[in-house]
Amino acid sequence: MTVMRSTLPEEALGVTGTALQETLVDLLGLSLIGKQAHWNVVGPRFRSIHLQLDEVVATARAHSDTVAERAAALGVSPDGRPETVAATFALPGTKDGWLRDTEVVELMASALEAVVGRLRERIAATAEPDPVTQDLLISVTADLEKQRWMFQAENHPRETASS
Amino acid sequence: MTVMRSTLPEEALGVTGTALQETLVDLLGLSLIGKQAHWNVVGPRFRSIHLQLDEVVATARAHSDTVAERAAALGVSPDGRPETVAATFALPGTKDGWLRDTEVVELMASALEAVVGRLRERIAATAEPDPVTQDLLISVTADLEKQRWMFQAENHPRETASS
Amino acid sequence: MTVMRSTLPEEALGVTGTALQETLVDLLGLSLIGKQAHWNVVGPRFRSIHLQLDEVVATARAHSDTVAERAAALGVSPDGRPETVAATFALPGTKDGWLRDTEVVELMASALEAVVGRLRERIAATAEPDPVTQDLLISVTADLEKQRWMFQAENHPRETASS
Amino acid sequence: MTVMRSTLPEEALGVTGTALQETLVDLLGLSLIGKQAHWNVVGPRFRSIHLQLDEVVATARAHSDTVAERAAALGVSPDGRPETVAATFALPGTKDGWLRDTEVVELMASALEAVVGRLRERIAATAEPDPVTQDLLISVTADLEKQRWMFQAENHPRETASS
Amino acid sequence: MTVMRSTLPEEALGVTGTALQETLVDLLGLSLIGKQAHWNVVGPRFRSIHLQLDEVVATARAHSDTVAERAAALGVSPDGRPETVAATFALPGTKDGWLRDTEVVELMASALEAVVGRLRERIAATAEPDPVTQDLLISVTADLEKQRWMFQAENHPRETASS
Amino acid sequence: MTVMRSTLPEEALGVTGTALQETLVDLLGLSLIGKQAHWNVVGPRFRSIHLQLDEVVATARAHSDTVAERAAALGVSPDGRPETVAATFALPGTKDGWLRDTEVVELMASALEAVVGRLRERIAATAEPDPVTQDLLISVTADLEKQRWMFQAENHPRETASS
Amino acid sequence: MTVMRSTLPEEALGVTGTALQETLVDLLGLSLIGKQAHWNVVGPRFRSIHLQLDEVVATARAHSDTVAERAAALGVSPDGRPETVAATFALPGTKDGWLRDTEVVELMASALEAVVGRLRERIAATAEPDPVTQDLLISVTADLEKQRWMFQAENHPRETASS
Amino acid sequence: MTVMRSTLPEEALGVTGTALQETLVDLLGLSLIGKQAHWNVVGPRFRSIHLQLDEVVATARAHSDTVAERAAALGVSPDGRPETVAATFALPGTKDGWLRDTEVVELMASALEAVVGRLRERIAATAEPDPVTQDLLISVTADLEKQRWMFQAENHPRETASS
Amino acid sequence: MTVMRSTLPEEALGVTGTALQETLVDLLGLSLIGKQAHWNVVGPRFRSIHLQLDEVVATARAHSDTVAERAAALGVSPDGRPETVAATFALPGTKDGWLRDTEVVELMASALEAVVGRLRERIAATAEPDPVTQDLLISVTADLEKQRWMFQAENHPRETASS
Amino acid sequence: MTVMRSTLPEEALGVTGTALQETLVDLLGLSLIGKQAHWNVVGPRFRSIHLQLDEVVATARAHSDTVAERAAALGVSPDGRPETVAATFALPGTKDGWLRDTEVVELMASALEAVVGRLRERIAATAEPDPVTQDLLISVTADLEKQRWMFQAENHPRETASS
Amino acid sequence: MTVMRSTLPEEALGVTGTALQETLVDLLGLSLIGKQAHWNVVGPRFRSIHLQLDEVVATARAHSDTVAERAAALGVSPDGRPETVAATFALPGTKDGWLRDTEVVELMASALEAVVGRLRERIAATAEPDPVTQDLLISVTADLEKQRWMFQAENHPRETASS
Amino acid sequence: MTVMRSTLPEEALGVTGTALQETLVDLLGLSLIGKQAHWNVVGPRFRSIHLQLDEVVATARAHSDTVAERAAALGVSPDGRPETVAATFALPGTKDGWLRDTEVVELMASALEAVVGRLRERIAATAEPDPVTQDLLISVTADLEKQRWMFQAENHPRETASS
Repeated sequence: MTVMRSTLPEEALGVTGTALQETLVDLLGLSLIGKQAHWNVVGPRFRSIHLQLDEVVATARAHSDTVAERAAALGVSPDGRPETVAATFALPGTKDGWLRDTEVVELMASALEAVVGRLRERIAATAEPDPVTQDLLISVTADLEKQRWMFQAENHPRETASS
Repeated sequence: MTVMRSTLPEEALGVTGTALQETLVDLLGLSLIGKQAHWNVVGPRFRSIHLQLDEVVATARAHSDTVAERAAALGVSPDGRPETVAATFALPGTKDGWLRDTEVVELMASALEAVVGRLRERIAATAEPDPVTQDLLISVTADLEKQRWMFQAENHPRETASS
Repeated sequence: MTVMRSTLPEEALGVTGTALQETLVDLLGLSLIGKQAHWNVVGPRFRSIHLQLDEVVATARAHSDTVAERAAALGVSPDGRPETVAATFALPGTKDGWLRDTEVVELMASALEAVVGRLRERIAATAEPDPVTQDLLISVTADLEKQRWMFQAENHPRETASS
Repeated sequence: MTVMRSTLPEEALGVTGTALQETLVDLLGLSLIGKQAHWNVVGPRFRSIHLQLDEVVATARAHSDTVAERAAALGVSPDGRPETVAATFALPGTKDGWLRDTEVVELMASALEAVVGRLRERIAATAEPDPVTQDLLISVTADLEKQRWMFQAENHPRETASS
Repeated sequence: MTVMRSTLPEEALGVTGTALQETLVDLLGLSLIGKQAHWNVVGPRFRSIHLQLDEVVATARAHSDTVAERAAALGVSPDGRPETVAATFALPGTKDGWLRDTEVVELMASALEAVVGRLRERIAATAEPDPVTQDLLISVTADLEKQRWMFQAENHPRETASS
Repeated sequence: MTVMRSTLPEEALGVTGTALQETLVDLLGLSLIGKQAHWNVVGPRFRSIHLQLDEVVATARAHSDTVAERAAALGVSPDGRPETVAATFALPGTKDGWLRDTEVVELMASALEAVVGRLRERIAATAEPDPVTQDLLISVTADLEKQRWMFQAENHPRETASS
Repeated sequence: MTVMRSTLPEEALGVTGTALQETLVDLLGLSLIGKQAHWNVVGPRFRSIHLQLDEVVATARAHSDTVAERAAALGVSPDGRPETVAATFALPGTKDGWLRDTEVVELMASALEAVVGRLRERIAATAEPDPVTQDLLISVTADLEKQRWMFQAENHPRETASS
Repeated sequence: MTVMRSTLPEEALGVTGTALQETLVDLLGLSLIGKQAHWNVVGPRFRSIHLQLDEVVATARAHSDTVAERAAALGVSPDGRPETVAATFALPGTKDGWLRDTEVVELMASALEAVVGRLRERIAATAEPDPVTQDLLISVTADLEKQRWMFQAENHPRETASS
Repeated sequence: MTVMRSTLPEEALGVTGTALQETLVDLLGLSLIGKQAHWNVVGPRFRSIHLQLDEVVATARAHSDTVAERAAALGVSPDGRPETVAATFALPGTKDGWLRDTEVVELMASALEAVVGRLRERIAATAEPDPVTQDLLISVTADLEKQRWMFQAENHPRETASS
Repeated sequence: MTVMRSTLPEEALGVTGTALQETLVDLLGLSLIGKQAHWNVVGPRFRSIHLQLDEVVATARAHSDTVAERAAALGVSPDGRPETVAATFALPGTKDGWLRDTEVVELMASALEAVVGRLRERIAATAEPDPVTQDLLISVTADLEKQRWMFQAENHPRETASS
Repeated sequence: MTVMRSTLPEEALGVTGTALQETLVDLLGLSLIGKQAHWNVVGPRFRSIHLQLDEVVATARAHSDTVAERAAALGVSPDGRPETVAATFALPGTKDGWLRDTEVVELMASALEAVVGRLRERIAATAEPDPVTQDLLISVTADLEKQRWMFQAENHPRETASS
Repeated sequence: MTVMRSTLPEEALGVTGTALQETLVDLLGLSLIGKQAHWNVVGPRFRSIHLQLDEVVATARAHSDTVAERAAALGVSPDGRPETVAATFALPGTKDGWLRDTEVVELMASALEAVVGRLRERIAATAEPDPVTQDLLISVTADLEKQRWMFQAENHPRETASS
């Protein structure tokens, strides 16, 4: 099947398409590990974290749809198949089985910190080739950076143990 | 970490836990390939199928949450991590790239037919060990069987071409 | 036109399809006589029964749609045409013209009792061939049995006149 | 039981009552064949027509209730029993079994065209005897004429094949 | 203060303005006696009639606003002051103090029958001078005629005592 | 018909019943003159005052219902018939015909000020005999006093013309 | 466990705490007998009373929560355990088994009259020690006194049989 | 492309189609100048008129859709293209640039008066050929005549300056 | 008063009626101790558990209504009076006074575990005599088993202290 | 600018105006420190307290508006400017920078306890001069006293450490 | 009338004002041709495209309002009058009369592609002079580019016919 | 307590943190003076401006929350305490006491113009260090610039007095 016609020139499209595809995998993977922790968390903060994780998942799912449709809108076929997500997911993952609440808070804080770092690079990379895509990546970053803060704040006593 | 205490005896738990874990992977995989097709479909029925696929995804996501929480409620840790889904997903998948609308209709009809067949076996298997889980699997089957019909009906002229 | 492919083996399909088709006619007929009584009831309990009847109709309509789509989902073409309903409707019907409120209460109590009896047979008959259909028939029965109670309770003094 | 007192003189009531009773049967019959097609349609336009038909049914049901209650408000007992609908329904009906999408579009376009023609005669007939009833019939006609257009537009290439 | 400019010629305005002003008083008066009965009804049908009366009041209030604004729109100042309503209200009223439920049903049936009779004359009178006003009066009549039926149906055994 | 049994002793009931009946007439009258002004106001502040008056009317109607039902709850039959309202309404009224916006603002400010003064006396009078009724009158006063402020503030330049 | 610190001085707290605890038991008991009657009522007014009772229950449940949290807010542990309610409930109760509609109306009218009498004493008792609690008890009384009226009005013909 | 089949005879269709097409242009043009004034109004009544204009636009847009679909339903292709609106719009327009609030009020009052006059002619013209279309034009007129009144009332002191 | 007619044969009715009555007491008792804990919990997890308990109460109340109405629908008078609940409630209860959050979590986990055990026996017992009731008990069990998991997960570190 | 006319005599106005102005500052200050803590809280109870604080802020903002408008309604200009709040705020404040969750719970419990004490004095002071204002202050107190309990309950183990 | 004061320096204002005015005309024109196609489309994809076009129109109307108000906010009078739109609209338009569904899909795909190209130039042009306007143009582009994709995907088989 | 870890390098963090803290104070101050004017405005435009001011306050409060949480998300503790707002608020404030409507319009137009000017500098300053924060500041500016226009348009005749 021939390529769909894009509104971007080819070089710009390459950079932008890569940024969108990588973000799609980050967000789909995040939604899966967020749900995994949502189901497996145990400990005295169970309810609080169980609910917080569903907000992360809702955010990740909503943005994954917008990011994939942005790729399609530019003529780039997005790839969010299970095998692609498993093979290219690059954020910290989680072991199987029950997860203590303290472990979950640390996991989410570090996974969100990692994805924010990756997004910031893509924001820089897409500024020139496609400011429309850049604006979308900025929105994703703003939401995930807020989630990162919430888990980091929840984790605070541990971080400042040496203070 | 020790195992959570279950309300089911061990043998019953083994059968039930397996049925729930396999259903969880079916549903998470289905939600991923449903979205993949939602983004990549092209052809004159684009809008109609694009919207229908989001109903499949919404159904699959909602049931995957209930199924995973049912496993947890029985003391079985559910596993919905990307690597687990990719490794154990057993339904027909999809190639990458754009998908013609006719291909998508056939793909969904056959994936839904496959998952319904697998669910019917689990309905039979869980009847004795845990009728509560069986009732949940019946609900999942009813919804997916309805979706299967819709794609099959959409596909009808092709099937009856020889008639 | 060829038959749609079913997810049930042929024998199971026969029993299940018959149960669904008969239930469809019961429910469509019930919705029509419920409306007939809704429009024609007179007497001091007019408003109360007029409103109650619309709940019966809403229940019957909603279930008739689910039952017919269940048949279609199994590959059985449902038949809810006017001539079919008129020819095969087997519940107590109503005479034409205005209906006293006491008559309506008795009519609905007996029509609902009859349909519940027929549904209980179908619940037994479908348990083996298709537990998904059985579960649907159980839901229909639960709702109609509740409606039957309400009309019977409304009718109570008459029934216990000899006590 | 004696006749209810009407706010219309007897002659006017005769014309008006007949117009309302005939419209009631048209609408109840339309709602039944609309659902029949909703459940039995197959073909590449399945989803689009399946949804469109539910709008026809919702329109027909809502208007049938208003029409029947208008008759009752004038002291004329409306008759919407299954046997009455089957015996007096005068619009094009449908065969049993699955229906190709193209057949459904033609069926609905012609059934709606027929009912509009009948309604226009009743609009003329009721102008003098009861402008309140006429206004209601005008509303019914407006809604059904809009539905007719949608099916006719959907059917257009076939009609203009010779152009 | 000078007269507002009207979109109707003077003669047409005279007939139309009178019809609207009389309807306004009918509706305001009806809303007041409807509330009076809503508060003072007693007897075994208390709850049912108490609620029904609030529907009459809601209908009367909504239409009174539309009718008064229609007068204003035509350049005729509407008059709904307490003294005007008391002085010109021409429907059956109610005595003071508690009202048995049977009395209320009869009162409302006769008040609504009276107002419908008056409205039908105004529908005829406004057909030529202002079809827009006529259409509004038709809507008012349709709603009040439906209310009349409901109270008459509730009152039925009494009316047909001799049958 | 005998008097309904009250939960208050007779003397307390006399004071409380009078306070509620007088408040009922104030509120019904206020709702009628509020609507009268709503329909007849003209001038550059038309829209602003037209909308504000509907808030007064909504407040007056809602409180009139609560006040009348409070009287009934105490066994006192409330009287809100047109002739009673016209005969006993004691607030500033309005002339017929179009009303300039400045006139309306002054009318409402003075009518609301008058009703608040009357309510304050009833608050004092009911404190001992029935604190439940007093609490209701306090709520009515709070809402009307807020409305009075809004019209007074709207009217300010005129009041302070000499400053 | 030590006592929670209260914002009230000890003596005021004693009176207020007793008033709240007694009101809590009244309301929880009322909600239980209201539901008992909701399920067991039979007779021609079944539907009307069945619905009215659910309003009583909703009111009683909502106020019981506010009353108990008010006690907690003052540092008094509220006690709503089954054994406490059964042991200290002081309103008229109900026999087991089906209840005729006339019996239910009388039961509710007398239970509500009893609770209003008890609440009026507590309103007087808490005026000095805690006007915030008094205000809450006034709200509870207003709602229950309205419910009492409705059942008494429904019961009226029986009460005035000798008139 | 051939003509769509109409439910009206040809002559009736000519009159009706012309009335609908002219109304469509009136309404689309009105929605455009309403928005133009919404954006460009300045002066002390800015907010009040800015909001009022959006109600005019919402009304005009909603009716333009119904009018155009009515034309299509009758088999007449509606024409609402920019060049058609510009070429055939016959109501008072507006100059470019900022508009004082007093100018806007006068503009809207006169544009609405003009459109009402044109609509009244079409109401008369369509009475015979198509009462369904006439009923729609009556609804449009009722809404626009109400809007005209509001702007005229807002403009009142200016009009009566000589009084 | 005579017994209501049931749709079940007598023996089946005995088993089913007992299962429903016992479940009713379990659920009403659970709703009362859930509220008791909701009001009396103290400790660092106050808010989280306070909210979780209201979900338990909402679930228990909703199911208690369905269960009692199911009994009535079968002709068995349900008994939910305070004295019955207190006398026959068989789940772990709670002491009076303030409750530490850790105590509440343990209490709810063990009360929910107990009720689930009892429900599983009733699911088995009702399978033959009334599959409609069995289906209802399965729904109750699914919801309470989910609640049990949430409290157990919240309690986890304590349980696994020896691991 | 001259003083607005009040509905209260001058002496009463002085006491009432002071009570309202002081309450306004308490509530605005509370809303600011509530948000400050909402943003700066850290520790394992982050999410729970973060959400609870937004309820405090919503309550304080809503009441501050009602209190200020009550002052205006009495003719007293309310003062909620930043400099006034900063200069006259008399409740416990908060240091800058991050705040541990335990600190926040203590801060809010003591700030809410202080404001309740101040409000109780104003409730007593306004009883005579203006019962309408007193009723408003009672509502504010009820809501804030409930919030105080929630923070105190959350803080409980610390308080009872010596028990 | 003098120019409104802007928050932008004159040169920046020139570029920004032009970009906004041109975008306004693009969007208003798009909303008119979108509606034109919505009403005139015929063919087997009628319903699907009819609905899709209303999403385009809703998007275009919402953005046109934001764009025009942005111009006003900067002190530039926006011009959206019929004659301006007709004279300066620069996107592909549509012929009159009925439109085949395939023609509509092509028309919309090309009109949307054209407007996106024009918007990308304005995004570049406004980056320096006014990043606030640029951000708004980015939002418009994102939405229209998504719409373009949907029509292009719908059109796909035609485009790739030679592949 | 140690500093929270930021996702920004230190220098970038300094600029961004300052921009956010200054914006927070601007918005909190604006919400306080907006409410002050909302309560104290008098004059013929009272209602219109009273309502407009609540939109300003809602906008300022919503953005202040987002801005403060953005600071926290970057690891910068936001400071919105009363003393901080009073000490660092740099926009035009308001005198105490009643405010004429004309004064309020001028005050808000100039305060909004001032804050927009300050925001534009921060948009420029944050472009490099943190485009996510810049994007947030652009949103704030767009909303406040729109509010500025509305007050300026409302104020127009005064500004152009010399024209």
